[in-house]
Parts: sequence; structure tokens; C-alpha cells
Amino acid sequence: MTVIEQMGAKAKEAARVLSVAGSKKDLALNSIADALIEHKDEIIKANNIDIEYGKEIGLTPSLIDRLTLGEDRIKGMADGVRKVSSLPDPIGNVISGNTLPNGLTVTRVKVPLGVIGIIFEARPNVTADAASLCLKAGNAVILRGGKEAINSNKAIAKIMRDAVEKVGLPKDSIQLIEDTTRQSSTELMQLSDYLDVLIPRGGAGLIKAVVENSKVPVIETGVGNCHVYVDKYADIDMASEIIFNAKTSRPSVCNAIETILVHKDIAKDALPKIKEKLDTKNVQIRGCKTTKEILGDDIVDAEESDYYTEFLDYILACKVVDSIDEGIAHIAKYSSGHSECIITNDYARANKFKKEVDAAAVYVNASTRFTDGGEFGLGAEIGISTQKLHARGPMGINELTSSKFIVEGNGQIRV
Amino acid sequence: MTVIEQMGAKAKEAARVLSVAGSKKDLALNSIADALIEHKDEIIKANNIDIEYGKEIGLTPSLIDRLTLGEDRIKGMADGVRKVSSLPDPIGNVISGNTLPNGLTVTRVKVPLGVIGIIFEARPNVTADAASLCLKAGNAVILRGGKEAINSNKAIAKIMRDAVEKVGLPKDSIQLIEDTTRQSSTELMQLSDYLDVLIPRGGAGLIKAVVENSKVPVIETGVGNCHVYVDKYADIDMASEIIFNAKTSRPSVCNAIETILVHKDIAKDALPKIKEKLDTKNVQIRGCKTTKEILGDDIVDAEESDYYTEFLDYILACKVVDSIDEGIAHIAKYSSGHSECIITNDYARANKFKKEVDAAAVYVNASTRFTDGGEFGLGAEIGISTQKLHARGPMGINELTSSKFIVEGNGQIRV
Repeated sequence: MTVIEQMGAKAKEAARVLSVAGSKKDLALNSIADALIEHKDEIIKANNIDIEYGKEIGLTPSLIDRLTLGEDRIKGMADGVRKVSSLPDPIGNVISGNTLPNGLTVTRVKVPLGVIGIIFEARPNVTADAASLCLKAGNAVILRGGKEAINSNKAIAKIMRDAVEKVGLPKDSIQLIEDTTRQSSTELMQLSDYLDVLIPRGGAGLIKAVVENSKVPVIETGVGNCHVYVDKYADIDMASEIIFNAKTSRPSVCNAIETILVHKDIAKDALPKIKEKLDTKNVQIRGCKTTKEILGDDIVDAEESDYYTEFLDYILACKVVDSIDEGIAHIAKYSSGHSECIITNDYARANKFKKEVDAAAVYVNASTRFTDGGEFGLGAEIGISTQKLHARGPMGINELTSSKFIVEGNGQIRV
Repeated sequence: MTVIEQMGAKAKEAARVLSVAGSKKDLALNSIADALIEHKDEIIKANNIDIEYGKEIGLTPSLIDRLTLGEDRIKGMADGVRKVSSLPDPIGNVISGNTLPNGLTVTRVKVPLGVIGIIFEARPNVTADAASLCLKAGNAVILRGGKEAINSNKAIAKIMRDAVEKVGLPKDSIQLIEDTTRQSSTELMQLSDYLDVLIPRGGAGLIKAVVENSKVPVIETGVGNCHVYVDKYADIDMASEIIFNAKTSRPSVCNAIETILVHKDIAKDALPKIKEKLDTKNVQIRGCKTTKEILGDDIVDAEESDYYTEFLDYILACKVVDSIDEGIAHIAKYSSGHSECIITNDYARANKFKKEVDAAAVYVNASTRFTDGGEFGLGAEIGISTQKLHARGPMGINELTSSKFIVEGNGQIRV
């Protein structure tokens, strides 16, 4: 057995205990929250090593910022863990039940998924966030973080493991892979004897590699090529406010928009107002031919490839469309199925968009930036699924569960 | 674009139409049922070619039987399709909904999965069964059957496609891959741009190959290494009836049992009775040391590997265990997580087993043979999932759906 296989076997054992641990899981979570505060100096010390190394290898200031764990962020992590402990426990909930003509009762109940693998990149707070959500839903977790945060991750994982053990649950409920070479994530993707699901959290490259190479079922998260379609019956002020918010409030996240589609009948009035607002944050517009006719020749030409691109930057593609159907067809072709929005005051057209657009979240007259487990009231989120299997959109605790059928009889046999 | 990529693109187009087709889907299903009956002679003619070929290449009589489509089976297929049309349509059902403090309403509704790929082996009736379930849930389907049934599959697929087109839905809602070389299934497993899920239906070898090689999300079906644990407080007559039924009523299916675990305090009384009943069907028992002490030395020795084996035959492994915990631990180690049963009259021990055993279906005092969509009242079944992601246990129409969030506002932006 390799080290990672051994971790898999230990996780499976821990998962058996967690699956029937009931409210002890909340004791463990509160114990973790206390321990994070108590040992904050150790975390900061380990984090400083990562920051030094990050500066040495020339990480950008924004990556250094993501990596940094000050006292406030550690308190934030602890608060997050406590919030997870206060969520209702889904395990054992009855989903459905019936009695068959032969007298058998069939009850479907929620159970944990079992063992969850999470592969993530630079942000060390994922260690505490993800582990606490998995634990609350009765799952053991194997974490594999990036090398940039390895010292921070090790410190946090050790503190959590000790805290879990302190309340009498197995410390192997939470395990961190300390080997950050490519080999370790490849091995994790082969661990189908032990892992029930693998969740990659990070950039498009990481996610694609996991989806293509994993033998373990994967929940695909995060890539967001999102659109706002400005209908001919849109309120132009509302459209420009929403586009401004959805593009610029945080351009680096998956629920930010990358392309706007504007109905031809409103384009002449709407586009200059939209541009005026975007100009205040120096957003580059890459437009189609008609866009350039309206906004002028200094607008950059949009290439076909721009419509496929998640810019994650102050760049916005723009296309003028002849009809709502052309808008919906454009979205069907280029979208990653994350969050899509229509701005309109026409009832029938709003309903058409809601029904025909295939995405995790479909919006009418609101910013796509709301696609988030916290905003949607799920309590906390492990990621945003962009696949259709198992979970779609923001995933909370419920999405970390499975179900089983309980069948009870008094001697029934099948004839 | 390869032929299979073109099929993927066509299926995606068809899926867009099906996702909003409403009750027209039922018209299509009834049109299919009528057409199957109307064209039964064509089906039988094509089927005869397959049967001749099957005899030439030396298929076993039971495989030839599975392959054969007489008038009765065709009527059975048509009745099955009509039954699917009469099921309630899940699409558009509201799963949950709430209003956020900022006035946004968030509603989660059921939507189709999109495009489903199904890889199956010799039974041509799967073509009609699977396609009708996919269609009812608003999905386009790409079928890839085995070469033994290719002529039958082609005839059935053509009839179904024409029948779907007749009611004004796209004929590419149902497509059959006519190339039955390994190349075509390999290509289907790479079709992640078009396929939302791939479901293999067949033997363990096929399923393993798909799980290991697919870049498309897979629902794993079917492998059943199922157990009956006979507790010290079991009713021995009930135990022997249930074991007899679960082993011999149809040994070749996934919900048949492969191993029994007998508590040591009841083994001396129970094992001879269990054996007496099994002897009437010449079931070979492969026993542990204690089993042999009780039943005699002519019992075959059980090897470690027997406990991992899905015999699908008149063979049953048997182990005497010291405690319910040893029984549960054995199941945790060797089971495929399909269907597991305890025979007991002790309330606390029944509950312990229900809670601690991790399987798609956990039974108390009833035969595992009931794990089936039809028996559980799901209307019809596309297969039995043995994974925990998305669907677990018998999968009906609901398991062929996904969901989306509809978010409606009046200009909300995220601050």
C-alpha cells in the first residue's frame, strides 16, 4: 500500500464512525473553532514561511493576499466552522417512504457520501472551510492543497485533527496529503477503492485535469462564462447598473460576467450608457461589428475566441443580437452553464428565458454575482457545481450527502 | 467532426427542444408504442439475423434467449413504453424556493439532464426501455448496444425515430451508434462536450471499463455482491426461506445474494436447515472452517477470494461470525454496496444494522431480490446505481433529471 492508499483506508474507517456520530460532530466542530483561535500564533508562523516562499518565487500581490492568514482571517475561519456546526444535521432525514402491497416498507434516508477528496490551490482557508462542511455531513475528507500554502495547511490540519480527537472522534476524519508533487494528485484521482467523490477547487486547468483523469466520480466546479442579455424591453438604467455590478464588483470570480448580448432595437440607446458606467472602472469592451458602429472605432474587435473566454479581468465582450432567440442560442453555444441573466420588463420573454436557458442559475433582472451558497441561504458552500449530475449550482451540506433505501419486512420473498 | 461527435451535436440540439416539449413527449411515447406493434414483423426479421449470427458464434442458450424478440416480447416492450408515458412528468417541478432578505426569489426547479449516453450489451429490449425513460424526462439519448443485437437495435431505433418525428419532435432525440467496434464506445466516453452522463448497463467488465476510461460523468450500475446476515435472534425458518429466495430465484441478477454470514450462537441450528433448502436446487456452499465443522467435510473450502466474488450462479459462500459487529465489518469490507440483509427479531440489532450498513438498500427480514425500480414503485428503472453520487439504488425518471436555480429580482446588485 502506498502512503495515499493507507490514507484512503484510514479515511474509510473514520467515515464509518462519522456516519453514526450524530451530535458529536458538532462538538468536534466547536473544538476545532476553539483550537484555531488558541493556536493562531502557530498558524501565523507557518503562514509566514509560505508568504516568504511565495515572494521568493514571485507570486503576484493578489496571490500573496489570498495566501495570507492574519489574526482576522483566522477568526473568520473559526467563525465559519462554528456557523457550520450550527446548521441542521441532514443525516438520517427521511426523503421519502411508502408501504408496498406486499407489506414491505421502503424508506429513503439521507446518509453521508463517505470519503471526499478535495484538490485545491493556493487559499489555505479552504482547509478549514471544506473540512468542516465534510465533517458536518458525516464524511471523512482527504485534502490535497497547493505547495504555496503547504506550511499553513499542515498547521491548520494538525490543529483540526487534534481537536477532533479530543472529543473522541477519529483524527483521520481529516487528513492532509503533505506531498504536493503532481504524483500525489494523480494518485488521489486513482483512489476509487476508497474515495466516493473528488472535488477540485481552483482554476480551469486544475479542474480540466481532474475531470479528464479521475477514476473517482468528480463534481466539476467553478468555471463561469456568464452572460447578461439586455432585451429590447429592458430598463436601460437597471441594465447598466447590473452589468456594472456583475462585471466589476469582483472580476476574478466565477459568477462575474464575461459577455453581454444586447437586442438590436435597444442597442443604440443602451450601449452608450452601459459603456459610460463601465468606463469608470476602465473596462475594456470587445465588440462585434454593430457594437463598433454604435460605440465607435476605438472599441476592440471581438474575436470568436473571446466569446468562449472567462476573462476574470476588466474585459467584457459585447454582441448585438437580432432577437431573444439569437441571444439564447448564443448562450447555449458559448456558456459554461454557470449563471445567465436577462434584463427585461416583458413577462413572456422573462419566462421564455427562464425556461429555455440551461444553466445552474438563471436570473431575471438581478446581478449574477448572487450565485453563492451564502447568498442563496445554504449556510456555507463547498463550491459551485457546473455539472448536472448530483449537484448543480452552489453546493451546501445537502450536496455532501447520498441516500439509502431501508426495506423492512416480516419474511417477504420475491415470487 | 467524427460521426459520433456529429451525433453528439445533434443530440444536444434535440435536447434543447425536448427540455421544453411538455406533454408532446407523451404523444411521442405513445406513437413509439403504436409503431413497435405495427412494425413487429420488421423487428422479428432483423432479430432473426442476430439469432442466426449468435448461434454461429456459439452464444449460450441463455444468451440466445435474452437476445430473442418474439411477438410477446415486442408487445411487452410497447406496453413498457406506454407505462412510461403514463408516469407523471418531473420536469418543471419545484424542489424548493425562498425569498432572500434583499427581495430576490430563488426557486429550484427540475430540468432534464440533457444528453444521456447508454452503453449496453446483448438485450435489444434495452433500446426501447432506456430510450423511452430518457425521453420522458426530456433527455436526448445516444445508445450504443452490443454487436450481437445490432440488427434488432437498428430496426427498433429506426421505428422509434420515425415515430418521434411523426409527432413533431426531433428524430435525433433517439440515436443509435451503428458501429459496434471498441472504437465507438471509446469515442463515446470522450464526448464530454455533448454528453451530460454516461450509463453503462451490462457485466462487471463493461462497467469497470467505462468507469475507468470515461471523461463524461458516469453512473455506475449493477455489480451486486450481496449478503444475508443471520443474527443470533433470527427466526430460522424465515432465514432459510429468505436465503433460498435471494440465492435461487434468479441467480444471474445483481440483487441475488453471494455470501451468508451466520452468528455462531445460531449456526448449529440454522445451517443444516439452510443447507437442506438450498440442496433442493443443488446450491454449492463454500464454507469457512466452522461451517465445515457443522455441515461436514464435503463442504467446499471458502477462499478469501470467494468473499469478493459475485458468483451469479448456484454457489453461496458461508461464514460463521462471532458477533453482529463482525458481520457488519465483513460486509463493509467485501460488499459492493448493493443490497444487504439482516434476519433478526431483535429490535435494537435490526436498528443497528439499518444504521451502520452502508449500501444502496438495507433489508430487515426480507429478500434482497426486491431491489428493483418496479418493485419499489418507481414505475420503471434505467438501472440500479451502486455509487453514491447523484443516484443510489434503483433509478427511475427522477434520477434522469437535474435542477436549476431561477433567481428573480427587480434590479438587485451585490454589494
